[in-house]
Amino acid sequence: MQVEYKLLEASHIRQLQTIVGEQYVFLDAESLEHYAHDETENLHFKPEVVVKPRTPEEVSAIFKMCNQHKIPVTPRGAGTGLSGGALAFRGGVVLSTERMNQILEIDQRNLQVTTEPGVITEVLMNEVKAVGLFYPPDPSSRGSCFIGGNIAENSGGPKAVKYGVVKDYVLNLEVVLPDGSIIWTGANVLKNATGYNLTQLMVGSEGTLGIVTKIVLRLIPLPKYDLLMLVPFRKLEEAGEAVSEIFRAGFVPSALELVEIDALQIVSKMVDSSVVPVTPDTAAHLIIEVDGNDTEVLMKEMEAIGSLLTRYDIGEIYFADDAQQKTELWKLRRRVAEAVKLKGYTIEEDTVVPRAELPSLIRGVKALGKKHAFEVVCYGHAGDGNLHVRIHKEGTPNSYGDEAMALILRELFELVHSLGGTISGEHGIGLIQKGFMPVVAQPAALELMRGIKRTFDPNLILNPGKIFDL
Amino acid sequence: MQVEYKLLEASHIRQLQTIVGEQYVFLDAESLEHYAHDETENLHFKPEVVVKPRTPEEVSAIFKMCNQHKIPVTPRGAGTGLSGGALAFRGGVVLSTERMNQILEIDQRNLQVTTEPGVITEVLMNEVKAVGLFYPPDPSSRGSCFIGGNIAENSGGPKAVKYGVVKDYVLNLEVVLPDGSIIWTGANVLKNATGYNLTQLMVGSEGTLGIVTKIVLRLIPLPKYDLLMLVPFRKLEEAGEAVSEIFRAGFVPSALELVEIDALQIVSKMVDSSVVPVTPDTAAHLIIEVDGNDTEVLMKEMEAIGSLLTRYDIGEIYFADDAQQKTELWKLRRRVAEAVKLKGYTIEEDTVVPRAELPSLIRGVKALGKKHAFEVVCYGHAGDGNLHVRIHKEGTPNSYGDEAMALILRELFELVHSLGGTISGEHGIGLIQKGFMPVVAQPAALELMRGIKRTFDPNLILNPGKIFDL
Repeated sequence: MQVEYKLLEASHIRQLQTIVGEQYVFLDAESLEHYAHDETENLHFKPEVVVKPRTPEEVSAIFKMCNQHKIPVTPRGAGTGLSGGALAFRGGVVLSTERMNQILEIDQRNLQVTTEPGVITEVLMNEVKAVGLFYPPDPSSRGSCFIGGNIAENSGGPKAVKYGVVKDYVLNLEVVLPDGSIIWTGANVLKNATGYNLTQLMVGSEGTLGIVTKIVLRLIPLPKYDLLMLVPFRKLEEAGEAVSEIFRAGFVPSALELVEIDALQIVSKMVDSSVVPVTPDTAAHLIIEVDGNDTEVLMKEMEAIGSLLTRYDIGEIYFADDAQQKTELWKLRRRVAEAVKLKGYTIEEDTVVPRAELPSLIRGVKALGKKHAFEVVCYGHAGDGNLHVRIHKEGTPNSYGDEAMALILRELFELVHSLGGTISGEHGIGLIQKGFMPVVAQPAALELMRGIKRTFDPNLILNPGKIFDL
Repeated sequence: MQVEYKLLEASHIRQLQTIVGEQYVFLDAESLEHYAHDETENLHFKPEVVVKPRTPEEVSAIFKMCNQHKIPVTPRGAGTGLSGGALAFRGGVVLSTERMNQILEIDQRNLQVTTEPGVITEVLMNEVKAVGLFYPPDPSSRGSCFIGGNIAENSGGPKAVKYGVVKDYVLNLEVVLPDGSIIWTGANVLKNATGYNLTQLMVGSEGTLGIVTKIVLRLIPLPKYDLLMLVPFRKLEEAGEAVSEIFRAGFVPSALELVEIDALQIVSKMVDSSVVPVTPDTAAHLIIEVDGNDTEVLMKEMEAIGSLLTRYDIGEIYFADDAQQKTELWKLRRRVAEAVKLKGYTIEEDTVVPRAELPSLIRGVKALGKKHAFEVVCYGHAGDGNLHVRIHKEGTPNSYGDEAMALILRELFELVHSLGGTISGEHGIGLIQKGFMPVVAQPAALELMRGIKRTFDPNLILNPGKIFDL
């Protein structure tokens, strides 16, 4: 079903200006162009107008108007998304949360923080760190992404392997619904068995059910120490095997990342870093971090993990000795995506499988590359079985709308599904993956999702065209 | 709206017999009487028939028949629930999961277990423990409750304070929907951003959206050691204060329970135990457990917590020295609910507040008791802010249907709500709390829940009368 939407009229623009103030309604070509992109491939969808409300009440008023006139609204955080969630696929209004950018309360008595959605994730992390508290989910884009976007996508990051993803920290959400109602989804408590879990339903719903205007997160005590090491593997698949071996031996690292050597070389050149010793016979690195409150215990743990890994064909283990080396190494890891994208690897998949299936996934990905003649580099949160697969195929800058690439990706996702995995671990489905939802979700499950969408948004104004077609 | 349901006819019974086999369809008075109760107060709702399918396909066939004829179906696990979720409020079919009782696979490579819903939680815990793995959520009834019921109620237990509740371990669910469709809600992965989180929506939905027929849980490495101590407090409120102090100091105990002295005395007599030294000036005990892989570290942690608590008016700390003492102490704690119920405290509330609000909640509960002339004992998972409030009021064995008690409970829940808390932390809403949902859920939020219910169950056959009225 193709939903019909209305184009914005001058009267709607005037209404928006009345709601948020003239200076926060943007119609100029430059603004519209800026908001036509996010970090997804090279996609481009121009909104008719960009509006930046400051309060839930302003959001509510905007929604009421759009709901009445069937004007699409696309919520947008910092625009760092990798599945096209923040793109105005059907035009209409882009509603940016940039001005809702206050941390409202750090509750040290209850280890909670209440924040608005437009706060940069790293700013939030640092603010709570300053009082000895820890908010772990740290996507690679944490220096620029918004916490609200992290909620919308159920983001992960390197620490997820020990500490869980965004959904594991969200206690309660203030949400504006498409009809303008403002609700709280739960309570500020650690356990909740009070009706359906609307909080968890909102997390990862990619701005299609409502927009989050206040967020209550639980925090944990900040671990005092961490240790970091880099282990070079001569065989990519063995790096994958080692990952599940570490857990089977009873260790729970605070990060366990895999980076294929090609990706590391690209990023090392980009940031002009020599921190990582790269020998010619290395196929991939594992980055392993442990954290806790007792350095001696951590040293023992690192040694034990190191000695466990000697059964594989590895090179010399590199220990990041001081804060600067750690920072350098993490910077490298965090900038991999950006670097390989600049090198032409524009298509990124966010596959996730049960951890022990990682070697099978890697084998399959490489075989696909050979079969269909594309270059591919793998990296990601191996401890969670979450492997980012970056594809470079001459003449195919986007997967979206490319039929040949769609066939390749379908093969990839069918492999992932056969391994017990799924399409996205932390990027969301958005625009670019929605065609593949039937690979992993049965028709009845998809129908439930559509029914939930219609319950929240009967006029289908919110972020149309994302996750599934209606 | 009062939904009209059909009574079962002889032809329906014959159909049920064909689906599951004659011997698994129960119509005799004794069976119907047995399935008319669960552990909730003294409630009694007799089903027309009890049926015990073995497979998802049998469940599907039962649902199809009931859906076609508008016959209510109430799913039931072990019947240990405390909110009336397993009671056939509108008659019809009770569908027991007793025969779906196999652990299907313990996947040691991926640290996962796949199980049917009718497995006793403790059996599951022990089976995975035997291979060095840990499934933490352990409700007090773990020796008799089913894992399927734990999913339905999003159960907690003492370990939740460090390890989280059921929702934090469920990766994927096979669900039979009211129309007979059989779906998987997700994938067997640790991170998932693939469409709406149907898995989390099912957890805690109290058998109103579908019935879970297979469950995939993540497991973690089993901690090697634990230490347990009991700290007597002379002032109940100080015990509450100490709870949040422990976390603010950076400790994360693996259990942090509070038991008011009256409750402990009642249970000590019942089980004829002298393990716990009770001095006359004690008001409450905190039970504190730490766990990990290094005994020295744990000893240090216990000492540090102990020394932190000397700032309060406490008695002599009792350390459970060996496995037997620990078992004894936990047995006492686990049987509190049963013991106080036998003593006439039949009404149990499952309040939960932000941890630091525990003293305010305790004060409020005691004040309510005085005001309305009832006896009350408090105990529960203090580390989570989850306080069970047991009420004994002469002549009022049930809260359900008692108007005077409803007014009292409304006052209690308004207090809880004003403290940032909610009605149920781990028992669910079921029948007995549904009248109070509007205290904590705004009309628009309740409407969303109703819409979700209608999406999953348009004929409203599944567990009618629970959580909210339609």
